[in-house]
Amino acid sequence: MTAATNLQVVLARRPVGVPVVEDFGLRESAIPEAGAGEAVVRTAFVSVDPYMRGRLWEQPHRGDPVAIGQVMIGEGVGEVVASGDPAMAVGETVRGYFGWQQYATAATGELERIDRSAAPLSTALGVLGMPGLTAYYGLLEVGQPRAGETVVVTGAAGAVGSAVGQIARIKGCRVVGICGTEAKCRHLVDDLGFDAAVNYRTDSLDDDLAAACPDGIDVIFENVGGEILEAMLRQINLHARIALCGAIAQYHTAEPPLVPPHSRTLHRRRARMQGFLVNDFAEQDEEAMAALTEWVTSGQIVYRESIVDGLENAAAAFVGLFSGANTGKQLVRVRAESD
Amino acid sequence: MTAATNLQVVLARRPVGVPVVEDFGLRESAIPEAGAGEAVVRTAFVSVDPYMRGRLWEQPHRGDPVAIGQVMIGEGVGEVVASGDPAMAVGETVRGYFGWQQYATAATGELERIDRSAAPLSTALGVLGMPGLTAYYGLLEVGQPRAGETVVVTGAAGAVGSAVGQIARIKGCRVVGICGTEAKCRHLVDDLGFDAAVNYRTDSLDDDLAAACPDGIDVIFENVGGEILEAMLRQINLHARIALCGAIAQYHTAEPPLVPPHSRTLHRRRARMQGFLVNDFAEQDEEAMAALTEWVTSGQIVYRESIVDGLENAAAAFVGLFSGANTGKQLVRVRAESD
Repeated sequence: MTAATNLQVVLARRPVGVPVVEDFGLRESAIPEAGAGEAVVRTAFVSVDPYMRGRLWEQPHRGDPVAIGQVMIGEGVGEVVASGDPAMAVGETVRGYFGWQQYATAATGELERIDRSAAPLSTALGVLGMPGLTAYYGLLEVGQPRAGETVVVTGAAGAVGSAVGQIARIKGCRVVGICGTEAKCRHLVDDLGFDAAVNYRTDSLDDDLAAACPDGIDVIFENVGGEILEAMLRQINLHARIALCGAIAQYHTAEPPLVPPHSRTLHRRRARMQGFLVNDFAEQDEEAMAALTEWVTSGQIVYRESIVDGLENAAAAFVGLFSGANTGKQLVRVRAESD
Repeated sequence: MTAATNLQVVLARRPVGVPVVEDFGLRESAIPEAGAGEAVVRTAFVSVDPYMRGRLWEQPHRGDPVAIGQVMIGEGVGEVVASGDPAMAVGETVRGYFGWQQYATAATGELERIDRSAAPLSTALGVLGMPGLTAYYGLLEVGQPRAGETVVVTGAAGAVGSAVGQIARIKGCRVVGICGTEAKCRHLVDDLGFDAAVNYRTDSLDDDLAAACPDGIDVIFENVGGEILEAMLRQINLHARIALCGAIAQYHTAEPPLVPPHSRTLHRRRARMQGFLVNDFAEQDEEAMAALTEWVTSGQIVYRESIVDGLENAAAAFVGLFSGANTGKQLVRVRAESD
């Protein structure tokens, strides 16, 4: 990996089912130049997120499709190395949608300056970035938990889920996490302060969920979909709220299995189910970031990161999301010297 | 029908599938007496509502089951004919859960006095009663329509649906009603001021809905369920809201057909689906009733009633709800002299 060329990860072909490493390819391009009003950014970290699976379909699906041969999309943080805008200095640290590449150009108006004093740079893509805000809005604005209520979060050991559970704990809720390994279950309870954790890879999900939620479920923060959602819905309380953040178990199928109508459960339980995207709440970002920063710097929220080195390993990191290989935020460290 | 005995409609057996008249029976009992703190009410009108189907299952389902041999439940209006409470005078007009019978006793604390000057007495069970409030809360609090948005209501010619559409029209929405006959479609447009009406008993529901909703669907007020809901969900806009009031098409089946997960649609469209019951908003009743009364007395909301005479015809009126026999509020006039 040299600075002479711009290493990029491109979409080689459309995944069929669960993505594999061979769906992506590497390419070396020329380092771009900064036009007027643009900056060239050398990426330090790029983000690897489950939502990206939705951008790999031929048809639009919560965002425009990535074209075959196109650099894989994604958020990143990095340093401005050339600028065509007097208001943006070389050396500044910024966040933007750089894609999986070493160098990216962007309109300076689309770059966000990052305060590196608050926390390590990588957190700008995790607990103090999109995943943290997603957790904050989905739980507090969509889920609207009250102290003493039971909150269940799926994908609980992931970047979003781990923040959801800790915010719910801060708000005085009983917090139950669902994840896929015993080690992650222990992590949720021992490290993150969840009240209980349930491993969904058993034959006893309904019973385990009932044992973890003796007073039923008031709020679901849903990242997974499929059978786990059905099991949770069987145990919701009157006036429950279900925040639909993702459905990682169903991202790979165009036609998911049929289920009993969710409308029937929602009608009977006078409950609410709502899909959302972090951008829906962008006007509250300042307030939300202030709260998250306070919780992280005071140690009330702890976070983990799963970091791979080098863009050569980005595809494998992405594929690993769908088998639950990561704990906490999955990142690619593009430059070895990044903090 | 004499005043010497108390004619009652009782549940004779549990309906299998769509209720039939033979599921109910008539009984003559003694006229009850008023104990301390109670009143005896002679019913003038009793209400016949789709929700009652849910009370006929053996298992609880949005309310306790009616027992075999028990007087059929339901709201009514009538006149106090005996009182064991100095604060409640004989001759007062009241509303309460009297059931389908000529005379009922009730604790006076559970009776609501009705102002007969505002509108005909029957409206206290319709547009100025539970159905009107259901329309008001479901549309405004759950659906939260904004002027210019497209609102689609199912069961649109019924007691609730016809009020929903007119409130939405008052709020500046494009209003589309779905119902089951061409005559009802004309009624919605010609009499109630809907912008368009769609007859679901065709082979072209998707196309007809698309033609009626050229800008997509922002709010659904749902009384029916099943295929009609699926068709509407295929055309919802980003951030749509679905208020689940009822599912009359599915009240008769313990296990409705499987469908694609509603969660998937809600996730993709960042939409919200919520079940509710009129009681959920009881603390706003005064404000809501003031608004409804103003709209009705000023002629901004018009209403229809389908009235049968005599408790002997209550069961047939109830059964008729499920084939769409009624237009507007279905009532039983218990006393011929009622206004």
